[in-house]
Amino acid sequence: MTLSAEQIGEFQAFAEQLADAAAQAIQPYFRASLEVEDKGGRLYDPVTVADKAAEDAMRALIQAHYPEHGILGEEAGVAVGSSPLTWVLDPIDGTRAFITGLPLWGTLIALNDGTKPVLGVMNQPFTGERFVGTPAGAWRSGTPLKTRACRELATATLMCTTPDMFDTAKRKAAFENVAGQARLMRYGGDCYAYCMLASGFVDVIVEASLQPYDVQALMPIIEGAGGVISAWDGSSAQNGGCVVACGDPVLHAQVMQLLRHAM
Amino acid sequence: MTLSAEQIGEFQAFAEQLADAAAQAIQPYFRASLEVEDKGGRLYDPVTVADKAAEDAMRALIQAHYPEHGILGEEAGVAVGSSPLTWVLDPIDGTRAFITGLPLWGTLIALNDGTKPVLGVMNQPFTGERFVGTPAGAWRSGTPLKTRACRELATATLMCTTPDMFDTAKRKAAFENVAGQARLMRYGGDCYAYCMLASGFVDVIVEASLQPYDVQALMPIIEGAGGVISAWDGSSAQNGGCVVACGDPVLHAQVMQLLRHAM
Repeated sequence: MTLSAEQIGEFQAFAEQLADAAAQAIQPYFRASLEVEDKGGRLYDPVTVADKAAEDAMRALIQAHYPEHGILGEEAGVAVGSSPLTWVLDPIDGTRAFITGLPLWGTLIALNDGTKPVLGVMNQPFTGERFVGTPAGAWRSGTPLKTRACRELATATLMCTTPDMFDTAKRKAAFENVAGQARLMRYGGDCYAYCMLASGFVDVIVEASLQPYDVQALMPIIEGAGGVISAWDGSSAQNGGCVVACGDPVLHAQVMQLLRHAM
Repeated sequence: MTLSAEQIGEFQAFAEQLADAAAQAIQPYFRASLEVEDKGGRLYDPVTVADKAAEDAMRALIQAHYPEHGILGEEAGVAVGSSPLTWVLDPIDGTRAFITGLPLWGTLIALNDGTKPVLGVMNQPFTGERFVGTPAGAWRSGTPLKTRACRELATATLMCTTPDMFDTAKRKAAFENVAGQARLMRYGGDCYAYCMLASGFVDVIVEASLQPYDVQALMPIIEGAGGVISAWDGSSAQNGGCVVACGDPVLHAQVMQLLRHAM
């Protein structure tokens, strides 16, 4: 389903309403004492009261305004719509950042047109930053974003949330090969790192074990700023899994060659 | 040299002036295009124009107000004073956070009385947070801080800036042993992580390869909030190297037993 610029504008305004509602639901819980629940996944995956409250608030707004749209949310799963349009929601991406008090978590909101995400929002209410991407560009709180040029891994700054996210020895080795060739490596970043890549401060992000709702909102932001994001084999990143993002398309092609065999 | 509460109050006000001066020097460079210089250490250690400008600004203020005091700064080294009092300065702790755009770096300012740091400031101008510790307590932008109770590693949240900071196989193994027993592990944090520990959101930090100026300002903040920070063998952390900090003194004693052989 192809959306007009006018439709994208309407949905962008609505996505920002969703971000406001999520922020309102989450903020009382950030840096408060939290009850943490373990989902029982392989990695410890804390889910907070705030996460659920924010997703509930966003789902209620979508159901009220666009009952025909589908919803895919981290907490409450899939609600199939009669329209090909689906809202993809992660109320708190970066739950470990959240529970340790670090302002690197974000609320992720994407609109998928049935083929790909066409609109993405990352909202960080503690720092007051909102990153938005559409087919027309990407912005941080209204200011246009542009990735920086960096054609060689040897001069690149690499980020990755944690080396523990690589779930096979082959994937871990592929990541370590890339990390060993980069000029500078920094762990810990979650969705915030992707927004720093879109802003021109990070050159490459290599991750794995992502969910679709971890990555879909970030795709229009990175692409709108001139970067490239894909799965390790060059296919769409929208299904999550093994993801590589670069600010410079030339670097993306180079790094993908080091990763594709391990996907 | 024992300082009175009145003297500590005077020096705290002055340390906050230093933090303001450093912030003013640094802010134009955060998220701007930077010239990065490699000091040539084992790890890539970026030093920015901002780092030097901020240290120069702080040194000028100290020399103008307290010419008898010593100075130990990351950039310009030692200036010996006629007084036992020494200002220990790290204008930008967390240079990798700084150059990747993450608001987790901080300006660290400690006053050492000749035996130990008795006053510490961590200033993060992007988020507008200032953490202060003295023998009378610890505060975040004026609000008192208190570490949280956590008596068992099995229920603890652990932070560490990067697993690459452990410079011997023995140290890396000791860290991994602790990390494997913790409930939750998060990389990336620099000085901000220590302030989150003082705030009650992180239970234990295990690091190595620290410099005295990386840690001295954080000691009064953690101790003023009720936590314990030491070298891995229980001696003072003020010389840097291998450092362990815990919010709960009981946990500190437990974790130190797992680390001391590797120091």
